[in-house]
Amino acid sequence: VSGASTLTIADVGEFPLIARLKRRFEQPGSGIVRGIGDDTAVLRPRPGRLLLATTDALVEGVHFRRETTTPALIGRRALAVNLSDVAAMGGEPRWVLVSLSMPRETPLSFAEELADGMAKAAEEHGAIIVGGNLATALAGITVDVTLLGEVEPGRAVYRTGARPGDRVLVTGTLGDAAAGLEVMFGTLDVPAEIGSALVARQRAPTPRVVAGRAIATTGGATAMIDLSDGLASDLGHILEESRAGATIEASRLPISSSVRVAARLAGRDALDWATRGGEDYELLFTAPPAAVGRLADAVVAVGVAVTEIGEITSERDGVLVLPDATRVRLGGTLWRHFAANER
Amino acid sequence: VSGASTLTIADVGEFPLIARLKRRFEQPGSGIVRGIGDDTAVLRPRPGRLLLATTDALVEGVHFRRETTTPALIGRRALAVNLSDVAAMGGEPRWVLVSLSMPRETPLSFAEELADGMAKAAEEHGAIIVGGNLATALAGITVDVTLLGEVEPGRAVYRTGARPGDRVLVTGTLGDAAAGLEVMFGTLDVPAEIGSALVARQRAPTPRVVAGRAIATTGGATAMIDLSDGLASDLGHILEESRAGATIEASRLPISSSVRVAARLAGRDALDWATRGGEDYELLFTAPPAAVGRLADAVVAVGVAVTEIGEITSERDGVLVLPDATRVRLGGTLWRHFAANER
Repeated sequence: VSGASTLTIADVGEFPLIARLKRRFEQPGSGIVRGIGDDTAVLRPRPGRLLLATTDALVEGVHFRRETTTPALIGRRALAVNLSDVAAMGGEPRWVLVSLSMPRETPLSFAEELADGMAKAAEEHGAIIVGGNLATALAGITVDVTLLGEVEPGRAVYRTGARPGDRVLVTGTLGDAAAGLEVMFGTLDVPAEIGSALVARQRAPTPRVVAGRAIATTGGATAMIDLSDGLASDLGHILEESRAGATIEASRLPISSSVRVAARLAGRDALDWATRGGEDYELLFTAPPAAVGRLADAVVAVGVAVTEIGEITSERDGVLVLPDATRVRLGGTLWRHFAANER
Repeated sequence: VSGASTLTIADVGEFPLIARLKRRFEQPGSGIVRGIGDDTAVLRPRPGRLLLATTDALVEGVHFRRETTTPALIGRRALAVNLSDVAAMGGEPRWVLVSLSMPRETPLSFAEELADGMAKAAEEHGAIIVGGNLATALAGITVDVTLLGEVEPGRAVYRTGARPGDRVLVTGTLGDAAAGLEVMFGTLDVPAEIGSALVARQRAPTPRVVAGRAIATTGGATAMIDLSDGLASDLGHILEESRAGATIEASRLPISSSVRVAARLAGRDALDWATRGGEDYELLFTAPPAAVGRLADAVVAVGVAVTEIGEITSERDGVLVLPDATRVRLGGTLWRHFAANER
């Protein structure tokens, strides 16, 4: 390797690369009997807790492009999408396994910055990387993360518990990530300041782990999901699993000023992004009216905005009430149905 | 989609595909509070057990080619390499997460047969698929499996406990998978009967879960690892983690008659395959002389052959004693060192 050329992962070799990444991940952690360096990680679950397990992958060319982001942001995002799933159960993130496949010519610096992004995102949410796998790929990087978490048996919030009369609430704002994706792809031309705010929401989503925990420990939420595919699609999952319907008031949807301004300037409909756009990673949850006040207080108390956007019904169908009182069916459960019934 | 064309995963769509695979995976399982269909799987660990967690990926073009295997065998193998890691800790496999990324044009039948292969391999070893992720890939299939297992705190066998004077033992036979790979790649020409036996060992390795459990519950083993990268490399990991050395007798290595005959017919050295060849997924373990008898009995009692092949030393180096009494250094810890010192 000459001084001028870029050091690749193939130059370093698998075991030295594992040793390098291990140094970036290692930190004293509760519940870790053995971390990286044996056949499996060996962990000590807390007595009486349920174990949560989820996996999600980022695939180059599908979920990210190297030209429009950084290795650290890819790592952070790979963690965030999994943290968001544990948040949606009301759980605490604990342990992370990372399976990374990369072409041999991948720069060593790319792998190290990716690892740093993952380690930092994990640490910020109380999780620790305890193991993983490195593989060669012929083309394209795949970052596959498995996250383990814990929750008290009585506090887990599933998708199945929404009942007619329950209110529907959502954290944060909706549609920012979808608008940000359009800015990244060049199909939405807005002033730089607004554009960069939207792109940041797309590239570095904040998993609502603390808010999810606040909801679970407060008690009273009947169903919860994270918004990865968009409000129409993800609410559809709750309705399907809970065998219920919902009426959502379009005028109540929390839409950021960035999205509103971008829509106005570009002649677009902010509601499109807010209802059909994915990757906001906010939490959508339901609760009976009597519990809404204390749940909202608990979420606000941890610094996260929360908005009541509608109500669960017995109609086995989702309806969006537009500002002009038009009622648009959300269709069965999939955004595809929603799209087909669109104005 | 016309009747004549092949139905692809893109034709079916993500959520219907998940529903189809879910039906293939679902079965009543102990410790599953929620399986596929919520934000995370929710599991109930057995009180007092340690949790084992491992992940391993099969990448198309690197770990398998569609032309030389079947979807069911790919699925089986993806499970086997992870089951082998839990076996090497002396643990019981329990829950599986599958992260699958596939090009849109992947035939639906491929995904379904892959799922069936995984589900069957999991079931055979007492594990259940409880969750996963489906993603689109631009090119090539990646099958990423995370396996969770359990082990009693006092029974886990790590890589760190080998002590001078301990004997080194190995299950099954060595080198079959490496020779099988050469048959598949056409670099080893042997009679069909021998060739197919070797290829079977390569394509469908048997994870030594029952033998690993027998070793752990018998007690007395000081270190254990599964042979994925080959004897020289994997013994190297034990020596490094245990800060010890080893003397291995080449004449004692368990080599199948298929490998012996193939080597003789092709003018090759069976010892090369047995020491440097990977993917046999046998277990290598160490134990003080007083425990060797009862450990060997326990392994044989579950129908698996076991052979004593050498001894742990205090020399911080691995040595292979050839049939002519020549001593070949295993080098530091990596097979690369071994390769550099080869005859």
